[in-house]
Amino acid sequence: MGDVYIQGVDMIRFGRFPDRSLTSLGAEAALLALDDAGLNMGDIQAAWCGNLGQAGGMVGQRILQEIGQTGIPVVNVANACATGATAFREAWMGVKAGLYDVVLAVGVEQMGRGLLGGAGGSKGISKEGLLGSGIMPCVFAEAGVEHTRSYGTTFEQFAQVSVKNHHHSTMNSKAMYQKETPLEDVMGAEMISYPNTKLMCSVNVDGAAAAVLVSEKKARELGSGRAVKVRASALTSDPYSDRDLVMPDINTCTRNAAAVAYEMAGVGPDDLDLVELHDCFATAEILHYENLGLCKDGDAGRLIDEGETALGGRIPVNVSGGLLSKGHPLGATGIANIYEVSTHLRGEAGARQVEGARLGLTHVIGLGSACAIHVLEKPA
Amino acid sequence: MGDVYIQGVDMIRFGRFPDRSLTSLGAEAALLALDDAGLNMGDIQAAWCGNLGQAGGMVGQRILQEIGQTGIPVVNVANACATGATAFREAWMGVKAGLYDVVLAVGVEQMGRGLLGGAGGSKGISKEGLLGSGIMPCVFAEAGVEHTRSYGTTFEQFAQVSVKNHHHSTMNSKAMYQKETPLEDVMGAEMISYPNTKLMCSVNVDGAAAAVLVSEKKARELGSGRAVKVRASALTSDPYSDRDLVMPDINTCTRNAAAVAYEMAGVGPDDLDLVELHDCFATAEILHYENLGLCKDGDAGRLIDEGETALGGRIPVNVSGGLLSKGHPLGATGIANIYEVSTHLRGEAGARQVEGARLGLTHVIGLGSACAIHVLEKPA
Repeated sequence: MGDVYIQGVDMIRFGRFPDRSLTSLGAEAALLALDDAGLNMGDIQAAWCGNLGQAGGMVGQRILQEIGQTGIPVVNVANACATGATAFREAWMGVKAGLYDVVLAVGVEQMGRGLLGGAGGSKGISKEGLLGSGIMPCVFAEAGVEHTRSYGTTFEQFAQVSVKNHHHSTMNSKAMYQKETPLEDVMGAEMISYPNTKLMCSVNVDGAAAAVLVSEKKARELGSGRAVKVRASALTSDPYSDRDLVMPDINTCTRNAAAVAYEMAGVGPDDLDLVELHDCFATAEILHYENLGLCKDGDAGRLIDEGETALGGRIPVNVSGGLLSKGHPLGATGIANIYEVSTHLRGEAGARQVEGARLGLTHVIGLGSACAIHVLEKPA
Repeated sequence: MGDVYIQGVDMIRFGRFPDRSLTSLGAEAALLALDDAGLNMGDIQAAWCGNLGQAGGMVGQRILQEIGQTGIPVVNVANACATGATAFREAWMGVKAGLYDVVLAVGVEQMGRGLLGGAGGSKGISKEGLLGSGIMPCVFAEAGVEHTRSYGTTFEQFAQVSVKNHHHSTMNSKAMYQKETPLEDVMGAEMISYPNTKLMCSVNVDGAAAAVLVSEKKARELGSGRAVKVRASALTSDPYSDRDLVMPDINTCTRNAAAVAYEMAGVGPDDLDLVELHDCFATAEILHYENLGLCKDGDAGRLIDEGETALGGRIPVNVSGGLLSKGHPLGATGIANIYEVSTHLRGEAGARQVEGARLGLTHVIGLGSACAIHVLEKPA
């Protein structure tokens, strides 16, 4: 089966745009990605759209109505926080199947204010009230506390994740926040659910990101020298047959997806040069260091202490600023992560460039359950 | 690229189940399809779920929670009335891409009472109030009137579509309604929007349908002799770049999808033995005779007059009873159509069997816009 390449990828600056329509955000991202690919809508043979808040509302088709309908297949997908990554993956599959040479994946979300999963969160993922009032902060707080019990991880170590990601975002003009956020500010912020303070929770923002995927043949024909190879695409769900809660085992889902992705890519975590992972809360980033195999179990706190996951460190994580500072527009997040890693692999990340990046990984996980991992490789 | 086969396919009896959960309906259909395939959840490598009303609610994962989670990729898709067919198509693509040998597609919907797109319709497809109050009946009424203007199609001819489909459904134990509905009843029923009376509008019901798709290799290995070949899968959207209404040009979308499907299958309309098409209103069935090439433009009324599309006729259409009598649970409809055609191709349709059926076509079209067509072939 032929390889699939990212010919173009981009995102809008994440922010709050109450006066703009959902579709105008998605349309802007799609046009940016097309421009990055040097292609236009007439070249696109099929499109996939990821959105959660209006998941039944034909968002993909409405975006095409804004930027040029051509009659192509359009598919709308939803998969909680893995929505954007799932749209990307379905698009990848369309090319992989030999059905299309050039396809579009777009992810978009308009979020309310407030905490993820809280009263202001997306209306798309409430199930019978279960998720309606702040269960997410509690779950990720508890997961952090559990890590502390097992390995002695400290409040300060969790907080340093946020300090690091906020620092990274000062170099990312597309991040919601772009300012240094010192440790005392993070630790002193309103406590949401111990050990996560308000500055250790992802930021609800509006956002959109898009990618143009092409077949190997088409990438060669276009010869841009900027086509990022998709080395692996993995998607998993909760594996426990006796579990009926909506909240998945984020650790097991991630570990299973990582195993699939590493095998498909034929690489291991030591081969990675950067990672964009799902830091929906500061505690989550710590857990995922271990889930993704970036260190052995119990060693995540040390990674933070020694700056291994900061820009310039051994394996920079969330150089974009992450969900904690760049922001987390659910349906867009998975493609925005792919944009970030691709930008480094192309050597176009400017001040925040991970030098010599050849291989990167993106990770998202949503309640419900869906965990998506992609492994991407530097243009040849 | 290898062919893809339907190893198992089934549906629940459509009806109104206010006391059952959405997921229990989907779970029942999935288990029926697995049973039909002689497989179980442990054999399934990936799953796609189509649902509109709770499109952002991880319905696919919740169905697996009921019938056995195994950690496989689960994707939720929504595409208006083409939702189920789109889930089927994405599953087909997963096999086509060589990623999986055995996958599951399930479509499910719980509908309110009332007319499609009216106040009782799915909450999933309202856009800024535009579709909130009966625009669908008006659009399909207008399309019928237009057909009358062009070709002289009569009220009685439109009504006969409903008489025929209700007659067909008397032989289908899975249809919502199973009673003869004479012409005078159809014509004398409450007028919804001329020329469609209440008995010429599709029935809002709860329903679910599912299919197990397998690779050519797996089909050969299982050797059931009942595996239906997917000869073509086509999906189109509205092709007009200057059109910004949600309501697509149903004629053009269908004609374009038919052209793609016939080309992919290497067949023409004359090769078909039966068709399940999107009779969301009686007028729609008339239009689609021509859109699918079952007759030349303007000849649809004659097809009805001469019984060509009735069971026993030249090209039986909606032998299941169609959306008009079997019912139209949006997310399930596309897979229910595939079940119907597959059942005939397997020679298992009992009293309503289309004798010697070798090739069949399914068609759905949703506002928004998405038209899906599948061409299916008799087991070898």
